[in-house]
Amino acid sequence: MAQKPSIPKGTRDFLPADVARRSYVINTIKTHFERYGFLPIETPSMEKSASLLGKYGEEGDRLMFHVLNSGEKVKKADIAALSENKLGRFTQSISEKALRYDLTVPFARFVVQHQNELSFPFKRYQVQSVWRADRPQRGRFQEFTQCDADVVGAVSPVLEAECIQLFDAVFHSLHLKDATIRINHRSILSGIATYLGAPDRITDFTVALDKLDKIGAAGVFDELKQKGFGEDALKKLNPLIALSGSIDEQLDSLESLLSAQPLAIEGIAHLRDVLRFLPSLHVSNLAFDLTLARGLNYYTGIIFEVAPPKTVAMGSIGAGGRYDDLTALFGLKDMHGLGISFGLDRLCMVLEELDLYPTTLQQTVDVVVLHFGDAYMQDLIPYIEKCRAAGLRVMTYPTNHKLKKQMQFANQSNAPWVFFYGEEEQKEGVLSVKNMRNGATNIITLDAFDATVLST
Amino acid sequence: MAQKPSIPKGTRDFLPADVARRSYVINTIKTHFERYGFLPIETPSMEKSASLLGKYGEEGDRLMFHVLNSGEKVKKADIAALSENKLGRFTQSISEKALRYDLTVPFARFVVQHQNELSFPFKRYQVQSVWRADRPQRGRFQEFTQCDADVVGAVSPVLEAECIQLFDAVFHSLHLKDATIRINHRSILSGIATYLGAPDRITDFTVALDKLDKIGAAGVFDELKQKGFGEDALKKLNPLIALSGSIDEQLDSLESLLSAQPLAIEGIAHLRDVLRFLPSLHVSNLAFDLTLARGLNYYTGIIFEVAPPKTVAMGSIGAGGRYDDLTALFGLKDMHGLGISFGLDRLCMVLEELDLYPTTLQQTVDVVVLHFGDAYMQDLIPYIEKCRAAGLRVMTYPTNHKLKKQMQFANQSNAPWVFFYGEEEQKEGVLSVKNMRNGATNIITLDAFDATVLST
Repeated sequence: MAQKPSIPKGTRDFLPADVARRSYVINTIKTHFERYGFLPIETPSMEKSASLLGKYGEEGDRLMFHVLNSGEKVKKADIAALSENKLGRFTQSISEKALRYDLTVPFARFVVQHQNELSFPFKRYQVQSVWRADRPQRGRFQEFTQCDADVVGAVSPVLEAECIQLFDAVFHSLHLKDATIRINHRSILSGIATYLGAPDRITDFTVALDKLDKIGAAGVFDELKQKGFGEDALKKLNPLIALSGSIDEQLDSLESLLSAQPLAIEGIAHLRDVLRFLPSLHVSNLAFDLTLARGLNYYTGIIFEVAPPKTVAMGSIGAGGRYDDLTALFGLKDMHGLGISFGLDRLCMVLEELDLYPTTLQQTVDVVVLHFGDAYMQDLIPYIEKCRAAGLRVMTYPTNHKLKKQMQFANQSNAPWVFFYGEEEQKEGVLSVKNMRNGATNIITLDAFDATVLST
Repeated sequence: MAQKPSIPKGTRDFLPADVARRSYVINTIKTHFERYGFLPIETPSMEKSASLLGKYGEEGDRLMFHVLNSGEKVKKADIAALSENKLGRFTQSISEKALRYDLTVPFARFVVQHQNELSFPFKRYQVQSVWRADRPQRGRFQEFTQCDADVVGAVSPVLEAECIQLFDAVFHSLHLKDATIRINHRSILSGIATYLGAPDRITDFTVALDKLDKIGAAGVFDELKQKGFGEDALKKLNPLIALSGSIDEQLDSLESLLSAQPLAIEGIAHLRDVLRFLPSLHVSNLAFDLTLARGLNYYTGIIFEVAPPKTVAMGSIGAGGRYDDLTALFGLKDMHGLGISFGLDRLCMVLEELDLYPTTLQQTVDVVVLHFGDAYMQDLIPYIEKCRAAGLRVMTYPTNHKLKKQMQFANQSNAPWVFFYGEEEQKEGVLSVKNMRNGATNIITLDAFDATVLST
């Protein structure tokens, strides 16, 4: 194979520096998930196709990665389906499993399957890869990591307030200031649709509304007109999209505008309940956003979306909401759910762009031990052992290369300490320890060697 | 869907207690990988089929999971191949990607692809899932986790000694005593094959020898006879398989028996070199085992295999060896490699069987806050925040259920602390904190609340 090897489009190799950064973010998220009482679970990468197909709409079915049946089973290929261009049927004739498309549907399947082993309310978190055959582009990959926290089996504004606090706590730890946590409520959107005289056209209405930021009020109105909304409806909409002031003030205005819409009033009251449980946030802004209308095919209550700081041109870095029917897909009714998700890849890109990664991540080795010959190295083994037992990460240079080459390696490794032990040191029974941060060399008697002083 | 949902055979869901145990083992392994200077990398779950096919022999090709091409691409299905029963060709007509079968071949591909971004010797570790369409059985799954550490770009007995120390250090941390680290050397096996007059039949010879434990010397001899080894060869083999004493003594005997076999002498000298760099092990036994003959199609030097304590009936929990040609598969020659691997799933089963998991793993929540009504809960939010900021894992019970039900939840959660804050406490401005380990309840003034005292 003369050609340089490569990996499938939309997938990535992570070099040590990448893994260090990703682990830092993942560990931060996990730590806070646990502080909010979420417990970790994991589900298989492959689910039965029957568990996934039809759960994500047409687009999901199209972008799902199917795993071919093994061995002789591919003989069952439905050639007729292929020639009739029934690609879905053909696929199902040779594939019974698909790669996880998100973490939510597998979680619903998990809850139903293990309901007798769990105690409810059940709070779980899950940090795993998902796969989508999407066209790769900046920030969009065919394999990427989702970090989800969900609670099922309870309805309470406390839980929703905690979702908002959790977003904030994670951003605080990551030193990411000025993210905006936008909230809305499905019932408010439904109430508005009714108010506009189009209760069954909530999707048309929200799709247009969602573009307010990009195309302005006039653009939204044009689009709604084209979709058949009348002048009267648009006039009613005008004050709704012009809401201003604090969240409380906006909810007050909304309440008086929509006073005749019980659904909307219910949604407003619910958001107020949530705000009662919310102490001031550390680093994020909370915003009520009437144009936020994501996941309307599954969210039934509050909806969250988190935008990165305005200085970064990037889509949402977090999202979530309440859903009340998810496990019903697997035969378990009345299991209320609420969840949030962090987009790891985008979050990493935002931290990169804002240069927020701690410099300590660059230190992946603490000590490099130079090699002056096997006889010298042999003497050092017990002391290297002591360093490792004290928790230090030690790279023993394996061969007696030229000192220049070894020092080059030590420099690149970014280790703060380098050990020299050659003829001189052996004769004196000492170790030369170079502090790579300030260039000073200390001579340490081997008898008095104490690894713990190096960990500071 | 009335039917209870399920997952593909050979795959697993991990409940919180499972994840806690697996994370404990994985984190222990990672910690030691890092102390030995290995850096983490990750590779995609899917590799191009061309990178994997043919790398694992016929069995590997057969057990590989292929990912179906997306969308319209399946139309290119090679129907002719299917009707001719050329299943491999048919598969390749509809699939260009396969799931990772192990971590070694992707690592070789990674090294070649990124050679200009790495500094050598390059020590990497990788803890990721691999997939094999194997028949599921005890300890064998279709999706499982490998924990590999490899160093490429250097040859040195120091590195091999470190592999042995690394096995031992991990077992020491996991409190797993009496694992046996067996070592052998490819060159010794080659030397013996030559000594027996069958230099090109090392496989026949080692396959038989490998059964020594199970079928005894007589059985091995029978098998070798059937395979055409003569009386003379068997007579020569007799003293070899009867070696006894310390490793040094066994190597001495072997050296005199094989004095005319330069390959064997080289292998023996190499093992002696490794032993020079090896301080006494903490909890494992080291054994020279002439019958150890794994991975002969890729290992070129030392070979490792780790057996669990004899009281546990389980296959090897670790393995490894030196390989010198791996990256050549991707066009990069003379890149020497050495690696070891921990079998996470088996290791977890061994710890389970020997009851070696620390009891602290059962504590996944530190505080459960009972709910006596939203008005009371609202008061507590700032104090709960303080607990979380101090690193405590707090589960706020979300709704005002009956106290009995809430206490049942608190008991099941295994949290050491439970907060009570109702009418009485609100009136007094205090919090009742129950210590679930000893049953005592402390009354704490909210003004003086200090979360850090709970973390002890």
